[in-house]
Amino acid sequence: MAELSITSLHDSLTEPVLGSISFLNEIMSRYPGAISFAPGAPHLAFLRELDIARHVDRYVDHLCGTRGYRPEHARRLLYEYGPSQGLITDLVAGALRRDYAVDVPPEAVVITVGAQEAMFLSLRVLLRPGRDLLAVVEPCYAGIIGAARLLNVGLVPIGEGAGGVDIEALARACVDARAAGNRLRALYVSPDFANPAGTTVDLATRRRLLDLAEREGFLVLEDSAYGFTAAPGAGLPTLKTLDRTGRVVLLGTFAKVCLPGARVGFAVADQRVRNPDGGVALLAEHLATAKSMITVNTSPICQAVIGGMLLAHDGSLAELGHAKAALYRRNLGLLLDALDRHLAPEHGGPRWLRWNRPAGGFFVRMFLPVPADEAMLELSAAKYGVLWTPMAPFHLDGAGANALRLSCSYLDPEQIEDGVDRLAEFLRREVLP
Amino acid sequence: MAELSITSLHDSLTEPVLGSISFLNEIMSRYPGAISFAPGAPHLAFLRELDIARHVDRYVDHLCGTRGYRPEHARRLLYEYGPSQGLITDLVAGALRRDYAVDVPPEAVVITVGAQEAMFLSLRVLLRPGRDLLAVVEPCYAGIIGAARLLNVGLVPIGEGAGGVDIEALARACVDARAAGNRLRALYVSPDFANPAGTTVDLATRRRLLDLAEREGFLVLEDSAYGFTAAPGAGLPTLKTLDRTGRVVLLGTFAKVCLPGARVGFAVADQRVRNPDGGVALLAEHLATAKSMITVNTSPICQAVIGGMLLAHDGSLAELGHAKAALYRRNLGLLLDALDRHLAPEHGGPRWLRWNRPAGGFFVRMFLPVPADEAMLELSAAKYGVLWTPMAPFHLDGAGANALRLSCSYLDPEQIEDGVDRLAEFLRREVLP
Repeated sequence: MAELSITSLHDSLTEPVLGSISFLNEIMSRYPGAISFAPGAPHLAFLRELDIARHVDRYVDHLCGTRGYRPEHARRLLYEYGPSQGLITDLVAGALRRDYAVDVPPEAVVITVGAQEAMFLSLRVLLRPGRDLLAVVEPCYAGIIGAARLLNVGLVPIGEGAGGVDIEALARACVDARAAGNRLRALYVSPDFANPAGTTVDLATRRRLLDLAEREGFLVLEDSAYGFTAAPGAGLPTLKTLDRTGRVVLLGTFAKVCLPGARVGFAVADQRVRNPDGGVALLAEHLATAKSMITVNTSPICQAVIGGMLLAHDGSLAELGHAKAALYRRNLGLLLDALDRHLAPEHGGPRWLRWNRPAGGFFVRMFLPVPADEAMLELSAAKYGVLWTPMAPFHLDGAGANALRLSCSYLDPEQIEDGVDRLAEFLRREVLP
Repeated sequence: MAELSITSLHDSLTEPVLGSISFLNEIMSRYPGAISFAPGAPHLAFLRELDIARHVDRYVDHLCGTRGYRPEHARRLLYEYGPSQGLITDLVAGALRRDYAVDVPPEAVVITVGAQEAMFLSLRVLLRPGRDLLAVVEPCYAGIIGAARLLNVGLVPIGEGAGGVDIEALARACVDARAAGNRLRALYVSPDFANPAGTTVDLATRRRLLDLAEREGFLVLEDSAYGFTAAPGAGLPTLKTLDRTGRVVLLGTFAKVCLPGARVGFAVADQRVRNPDGGVALLAEHLATAKSMITVNTSPICQAVIGGMLLAHDGSLAELGHAKAALYRRNLGLLLDALDRHLAPEHGGPRWLRWNRPAGGFFVRMFLPVPADEAMLELSAAKYGVLWTPMAPFHLDGAGANALRLSCSYLDPEQIEDGVDRLAEFLRREVLP
């Protein structure tokens, strides 16, 4: 039998970040009794009530009503191949206009297999290998690092600074890239309660970021996954909302406000692209062209499920996320409260422990005085029955070793309380600064 | 507003092959009254009867029965994230064992977003940019060319020769690659009634191909999309069935035997991969790792639809394809018969016209004495109301200009007859050798 060497495969496959998701799955399956603060998965309560057939029916009715199709024709559309840009681009454009004052035509939207494909497509289309660099605010979603590694895209880490993005460091990175004969083509940032650190980019920094993007000619890939969890009235405008010069590509997912199993996300790319012949297309059309050679199109059945869910909420993403956001804020409040009671110095907790206090999102970041590595996690799982996520895979160049991520999105209140109790026990007994 | 130049995007986006699908969609939408021999889409009859909710229910029952899940747990699995390798790997492995005597464990299977993603993953994982070459039998499915372009994978065209693959040319290409300091890493081939030319690789050539692969150390990417259309008892063993040394990666799709809208395909990759630490994984696991950074996982809802359809046919792909294959063979027979009656020399047809006579599949290739280009297609559509596919995009390096593809898969008998009548009129009046 032929045997292949790992060195004969693409070089990204030996990068730890590519295996980070399967490592977490594997350790969770080995410790099924452990309370897990590891995965950033949606709460199951919302999946219990789900009737996907009803949502598909609603979308089929919508197609009949708005496009004049007969029902059997509309339903058949879901079973056939479909346009690479997607079927529900109009619904997504409508929701963005209504909820975020992002005013783009349906032609500026591409429906993707989750936000992950939207990221992958954006990197492939926008960054020329060996020439263009992608800046990322770190710690950073592992999926963008992994996509960049798969595509041999060079990465430049930028710190969070005081406002969520270190604008001075980013400006220097642009200069450095030019000096090295490269181009800093884009910055990836998740400005609201980012995965993994829960960081939010403040309003002044959002404006400074867009000014710098315009001055230096780079694009901003805005990952909007967690913005919906902001308290009513407390959300900041998206970068795309503030964008006046077409610098922002918005990346979105329905995994958190609808369901992960539909694998539906989107990219909004209304940038005009000038062809050599003088003609103009939107960047979204180029993303769709690349998509046609990766996944052809996003399952129209899955798009119908999401379309139906949007229609059931007046075509509003914000309405869709409303009830869910309340549960996630409750969970986050319970987690922060339990951490205080079990681990804050004023309650006898260790002086060397620190964590942040995001106002939304799924994640809290905790700093230890020692590496929070896989061996430590194994010990935490085996002896204390509690799981969390090491922060190192979210950093480039080996930084972040002393931090971990706590996710509370899919736990119930008593699990959060019990889990923090176990975590406190683990930290007090095993972490010796 | 910022405007981007096409030259600042990935270089593949100016390749005509990437736009070939959207060109066909566009011309079909401009001539809705034309009879179209263009798209290789499944016949709609099979989509009319489809009840996807019933198939999902059947798969949920199966999960409960085989894994001991409660129904609400099983259904929830479809709504959550899932393993990157897929949920229905066991059903696919079982079907391959039963139908094709391909004996691999479920761990050797990855469920993908259509066969297109299986191709894309295979190219990314197996071919190192700038070092490894992919040989393709041409004319060749546009999707593999497009995926290679997107990944900057170098392509080597190999002719069909007499047996379906020109083995001598392939052997020379291996030598040439080595001499140039490269490695011919894999051959992509669709051995049964290939898209676009309907070509089949004969049994002797299959064996010679596998011998050469073993001798030269390359892999074979076998696209099995159309094998199910063979007449009962007339199908040849798949390359994977004949493979004794682990040289073949099998790529499959459910688009033709189930429905395109589910976007479910698979790769079978049981090759052992040796890690530097001496550990061994299957190639399929590496494909899944790469997939986790592109689409994360294939929609479990869509996998349940396909799983339910497989279960409804005793877990057999062959059974699933049975009724459909009969319709496709009927259509192909009608097309060939109509071509004879309207265009064969013995019936007064032009002496300069030739076409092939595949025994299965969706496609017939026709050779003209002049280029069958987009201008010609435009004329055929506008003046004669008949569409077909130019063959040039299926070739590398500008070959194939004088050929066109006729697809009969989704037409009804009277459309085939009427379409060939129109085609004959077009050819007699407009093609002057």
